[in-house]
Amino acid sequence: MREIGIGLIGTGFMGKTHAIAYRAASSIFPDCPRSILRAVSDINIPAAEAMAAQFGFQRWSADWHSLLDDPSIEVISITTPNVMHREMALAAIAAGKHVHCEKPIAPNAADAHAMMEAAQAAGCVTQVGYNYIKNPLLKLAREMVSAGELGEITGFRGIHAEDYMADSQVPYNWRVDPSGGGGAVADLGSHIAGMARFLLGPISAVNADLETVIKTRPVAAGASERRDVLVDDIARLTVRFARGCGGTIEANWVATGRKMQLGFELTGSKGSLIFTQERLNEMLHYRSAASARNSGFVRIETGPAHPPYGLFCVAPGHQLGFNDLKTIEMAEFLSAINGGEHQGPDFREAWEIQKVIDAAIASSAAKSWIDIT
Amino acid sequence: MREIGIGLIGTGFMGKTHAIAYRAASSIFPDCPRSILRAVSDINIPAAEAMAAQFGFQRWSADWHSLLDDPSIEVISITTPNVMHREMALAAIAAGKHVHCEKPIAPNAADAHAMMEAAQAAGCVTQVGYNYIKNPLLKLAREMVSAGELGEITGFRGIHAEDYMADSQVPYNWRVDPSGGGGAVADLGSHIAGMARFLLGPISAVNADLETVIKTRPVAAGASERRDVLVDDIARLTVRFARGCGGTIEANWVATGRKMQLGFELTGSKGSLIFTQERLNEMLHYRSAASARNSGFVRIETGPAHPPYGLFCVAPGHQLGFNDLKTIEMAEFLSAINGGEHQGPDFREAWEIQKVIDAAIASSAAKSWIDIT
Amino acid sequence: MREIGIGLIGTGFMGKTHAIAYRAASSIFPDCPRSILRAVSDINIPAAEAMAAQFGFQRWSADWHSLLDDPSIEVISITTPNVMHREMALAAIAAGKHVHCEKPIAPNAADAHAMMEAAQAAGCVTQVGYNYIKNPLLKLAREMVSAGELGEITGFRGIHAEDYMADSQVPYNWRVDPSGGGGAVADLGSHIAGMARFLLGPISAVNADLETVIKTRPVAAGASERRDVLVDDIARLTVRFARGCGGTIEANWVATGRKMQLGFELTGSKGSLIFTQERLNEMLHYRSAASARNSGFVRIETGPAHPPYGLFCVAPGHQLGFNDLKTIEMAEFLSAINGGEHQGPDFREAWEIQKVIDAAIASSAAKSWIDIT
Amino acid sequence: MREIGIGLIGTGFMGKTHAIAYRAASSIFPDCPRSILRAVSDINIPAAEAMAAQFGFQRWSADWHSLLDDPSIEVISITTPNVMHREMALAAIAAGKHVHCEKPIAPNAADAHAMMEAAQAAGCVTQVGYNYIKNPLLKLAREMVSAGELGEITGFRGIHAEDYMADSQVPYNWRVDPSGGGGAVADLGSHIAGMARFLLGPISAVNADLETVIKTRPVAAGASERRDVLVDDIARLTVRFARGCGGTIEANWVATGRKMQLGFELTGSKGSLIFTQERLNEMLHYRSAASARNSGFVRIETGPAHPPYGLFCVAPGHQLGFNDLKTIEMAEFLSAINGGEHQGPDFREAWEIQKVIDAAIASSAAKSWIDIT
Repeated sequence: MREIGIGLIGTGFMGKTHAIAYRAASSIFPDCPRSILRAVSDINIPAAEAMAAQFGFQRWSADWHSLLDDPSIEVISITTPNVMHREMALAAIAAGKHVHCEKPIAPNAADAHAMMEAAQAAGCVTQVGYNYIKNPLLKLAREMVSAGELGEITGFRGIHAEDYMADSQVPYNWRVDPSGGGGAVADLGSHIAGMARFLLGPISAVNADLETVIKTRPVAAGASERRDVLVDDIARLTVRFARGCGGTIEANWVATGRKMQLGFELTGSKGSLIFTQERLNEMLHYRSAASARNSGFVRIETGPAHPPYGLFCVAPGHQLGFNDLKTIEMAEFLSAINGGEHQGPDFREAWEIQKVIDAAIASSAAKSWIDIT
Repeated sequence: MREIGIGLIGTGFMGKTHAIAYRAASSIFPDCPRSILRAVSDINIPAAEAMAAQFGFQRWSADWHSLLDDPSIEVISITTPNVMHREMALAAIAAGKHVHCEKPIAPNAADAHAMMEAAQAAGCVTQVGYNYIKNPLLKLAREMVSAGELGEITGFRGIHAEDYMADSQVPYNWRVDPSGGGGAVADLGSHIAGMARFLLGPISAVNADLETVIKTRPVAAGASERRDVLVDDIARLTVRFARGCGGTIEANWVATGRKMQLGFELTGSKGSLIFTQERLNEMLHYRSAASARNSGFVRIETGPAHPPYGLFCVAPGHQLGFNDLKTIEMAEFLSAINGGEHQGPDFREAWEIQKVIDAAIASSAAKSWIDIT
Repeated sequence: MREIGIGLIGTGFMGKTHAIAYRAASSIFPDCPRSILRAVSDINIPAAEAMAAQFGFQRWSADWHSLLDDPSIEVISITTPNVMHREMALAAIAAGKHVHCEKPIAPNAADAHAMMEAAQAAGCVTQVGYNYIKNPLLKLAREMVSAGELGEITGFRGIHAEDYMADSQVPYNWRVDPSGGGGAVADLGSHIAGMARFLLGPISAVNADLETVIKTRPVAAGASERRDVLVDDIARLTVRFARGCGGTIEANWVATGRKMQLGFELTGSKGSLIFTQERLNEMLHYRSAASARNSGFVRIETGPAHPPYGLFCVAPGHQLGFNDLKTIEMAEFLSAINGGEHQGPDFREAWEIQKVIDAAIASSAAKSWIDIT
Repeated sequence: MREIGIGLIGTGFMGKTHAIAYRAASSIFPDCPRSILRAVSDINIPAAEAMAAQFGFQRWSADWHSLLDDPSIEVISITTPNVMHREMALAAIAAGKHVHCEKPIAPNAADAHAMMEAAQAAGCVTQVGYNYIKNPLLKLAREMVSAGELGEITGFRGIHAEDYMADSQVPYNWRVDPSGGGGAVADLGSHIAGMARFLLGPISAVNADLETVIKTRPVAAGASERRDVLVDDIARLTVRFARGCGGTIEANWVATGRKMQLGFELTGSKGSLIFTQERLNEMLHYRSAASARNSGFVRIETGPAHPPYGLFCVAPGHQLGFNDLKTIEMAEFLSAINGGEHQGPDFREAWEIQKVIDAAIASSAAKSWIDIT
């Protein structure tokens, strides 16, 4: 089995998630190349060291450039704050690496475009961490749409809402630093906009209203000094899809009580789907029926009928978790590097998503519809 | 106990609902005046006759004017198609009657305003059939908002979606006749916009996108000839409330699979509510808590703690039905006629709601925000 | 339309429910005889008087015997505590009345049998208040079972749990008076045992474990003196049905948090049903399917496809409430008096249910299976 | 970090699950010893070879005895059919290995007792695969019970129902071979009985009814010849716990439509819990409250407040999957081998569970209560 050396930059939430997923992908997917955790890098030296020890990286470094110089590393995984993605990705591409970059890949579409072009010119395989669409049920949903099982699609009502920024005492941090791009619209909006595109294809126009609910935040945890917040807490988008239908998308990181409300209601002339990541192992499906006597929404539970679930567990209903979705993502990425079909999303798709985010920000400022071309 | 004579115009869905509710209100609410079903009118003579027999109206008539001439009738209930509301309501007011009119009361805000002014000038008590807000849980929700239990309100995400027009073979009918006003935005949008106002107060601006999904319909059931549809099937509104927060509202009568998705997610800095009429006897409530260990959304089940539930049943969890909501509406209306506090919604509130609908239609045409003043 | 005079004994929870339902039945069911509320009786004179005023009874009385002497009264409704049912029912039957009696109709099967025999000898139409099986979805469930749509039935798992006795400070009252029969097994167990019989037919054997959780209760509200409780708080039954399958039934009135958990899981070789009265307008239905890809439990929402829902509301998804179920019960009873098909449950069925309760009590005492013959 | 060599016997459903979990445990749990997959054994040689390649076992063997002779192997994982557990476990213990054995560990309590005694005599650390209780929410539930947060426990209503044997064409296999022990009562009943014990402690008596629904099965897939089935498809247990309360337990592998209904309703004088593995990342919790206005069941979603969730993901609501539960089990097992606290369940606990299963079988045969001592 081919081995692929991995270099990971960043040891936070997503850094750990990548390490877990690379390790799992190689064992759970029998045809997936074997990942070798070569090196992890973080400017926080103890974090890098601990991460290496815990996950079995062969070495660690405070300097991410050292990973690019390592010929045993084929893949660079970038899990640092958004504002650093461009520099790191371009350097990795220049060094001939394949690149996995967390979402959103850049503060704006222009940067994303530059990254996409560089990757394309270099023949580099890229992957972006829109992990939620790796859910087997999302693949089923897309298949149903494509096959016309829902008839003509008439509407999409999507949302990604969480509450990790709902407390006004959450301090100013990189998530609200405008140099990293938008606020909730970028952090969460990119997930649900990407999911919308995954299911229904391009979004052609946006009319958005962005709002900063918590207008100042402590400069640091517990500080009494506060700093103005310039990015949005809530974004409400009305959209048109190129296929002809309309929809709405909300991104909201002050949604008190919500931990993972990433979901949609998708309506067609012959059927509908309802999904929320809060119950990621089930999807509701309605099929127009002749008789109302015993029709209604069907609760589909994930099982071996929904690949690649069966690789995780041969029995239905046992359920996948968040890390399993990331494992699927990594397995697909590694397989693409090994010559398999690239299932994305790659930098091109991430750029397309970023255009939607940029259009939403511009639309809200202009108070008008913005076409996306 | 004071008796109040009722004259009902219309024998369709809502006509029957009114008759059921008037009869029930007087017995279930001990302090409510006793309604006497004096007369029912419909141009369909057999329908009027059957209705009188079934519900115990003392007489029936093909001519609704005859009800206005009857001094034993104090209240006129108007349940005919929207386009006829204005003429009937104004005539009833002129005849000195109190008026219950089904929603929306008029095709546009100007007509609604004229009706409101006439009622006000005549000292007439008016009621409009926004029955869903009569749910004890909606009253609880409003109380929580008013008392600040949810903190500062940060967002409202409302929808009223059903599928009774989803089949492209549903023939052209009064619902899609533009002389009666908007399409889904008026028929369903008025319910959810009214609910939003009930909970959060005035809507100050609207940015809407209206869409006709099924562009032609059979001229009659089974006909091959089809007629152009000029009203919307789906309306997507982004709104601003005068209190300062934003939100979205969707009205959709082609939502395949949905029978009664009238609901909202209401988010505040200290708590949140989730409600759908699909499960009208429960509401989810989240309260920000110090400990995440055992916090989460609470499923509140309706019971005697939520007046006037206890008048229907002394034990919790037994559940109210749709007709019970209408019964509450009628009891409140009859009590207001008898000098009790008017809980509305009256013609003034219906006019306010209609302004939101008109603004949505105008906004969609202009592709811009419209202020509501 | 034929008129039927009603005499009601008792003005408590069920007394009010009867009055509401009699009034509603005549208007909502077009072919149902018209009920005339002739008289209400209660030893609590102000209660009787208030009840008469509120619901429009033509007269009231402190003496229930006076209702039996009234030739304008055709029907006696008995809603007093269980221990009084036998005397009242036998007297009413002797007076030539038709009788509605709340459940359980007697403290034991012997009494129920005597009541059943008297009614039969007199040609009296009887009805017992097992209202929950009047739900249109329960009728659908029974129809599915009968038609073989679920295949061979393999199991029933039923429960009726509430928490109105969970607080050890709830005082000693008629519910725990052993002269009225069992405790939870009679009060709640009769509902779920009756529902099991409604769906699957006779129960042929029982193996039960009854338990008194709260062993003493205050002699009155707030009293410090306590009295021993001799009836069960929880009953756990394993049963065999005459049709060949097995099941379990639980009755529990100390189920903290439960307000109306009356439901079942019904499993067959080709399909399954899940129902709980907590969401009385929906039932889950699984049908064995060739493909696991999009199969699962279907959430059926009540609508006009489930008679007699359409008489209450012409649109699906609007939902019935508890009082509506009682209205269906009364309409069926009145129609049976008028010569229509008797849909029950009548005194015979109530006797059959009581035999199950008696067998449960005996089984628990004997710690062995008891056959029901 | 200490390394622990693993030898795995069996390559089926559970074999793969063990391999996945051993690999994941060492990386996700920072303090967990590092597992080294030394060898895998299966009489099916291609399966053993493929397994070794996929999961990185250093070698494979057709002969499981060879694993016992390997001094680099400290742990033997047994995932073969139940009937083989005893021989393998005793041999592994004799060879000085620590042993993980899938549940149920033996066809009967006597065998389990022998295994337990051997392990104890040898000072061997044992683990049994009751993975579902490794759910952080189950630990929370047990903690709530122990701390008295639910008051005095009054009842347990548990079930483990699936439908993998519901089709009468599923052929005769090891699951229905009586030499391996009971049927559903052993395969599924041991899970829910074990969960009951985990939460509430010892079960002191059982009254059970076991039933074989599908009385013959094809001798092989597609065969027309059928063989009598001697084990149960459904087991219905009424139980008494040593702590004083009662409950019911059902095991059912012909529960059409159910894929993973392993759950319970647990009721106490001051609160209740509802859980089902079908939604393993949420648990409903009711706490008796002074006010009914906004009380009800709280839906607790798993998050970092519920250790060890935070090791899998730092953000709440992202959800664990089935394999994550197994990973927790393996991490605890490896830590116990390394001298950490043993959290079980070990062979002693498995023996205790087996006594409940044996008692259920005996009770059903005797049609009487059986005490468990």
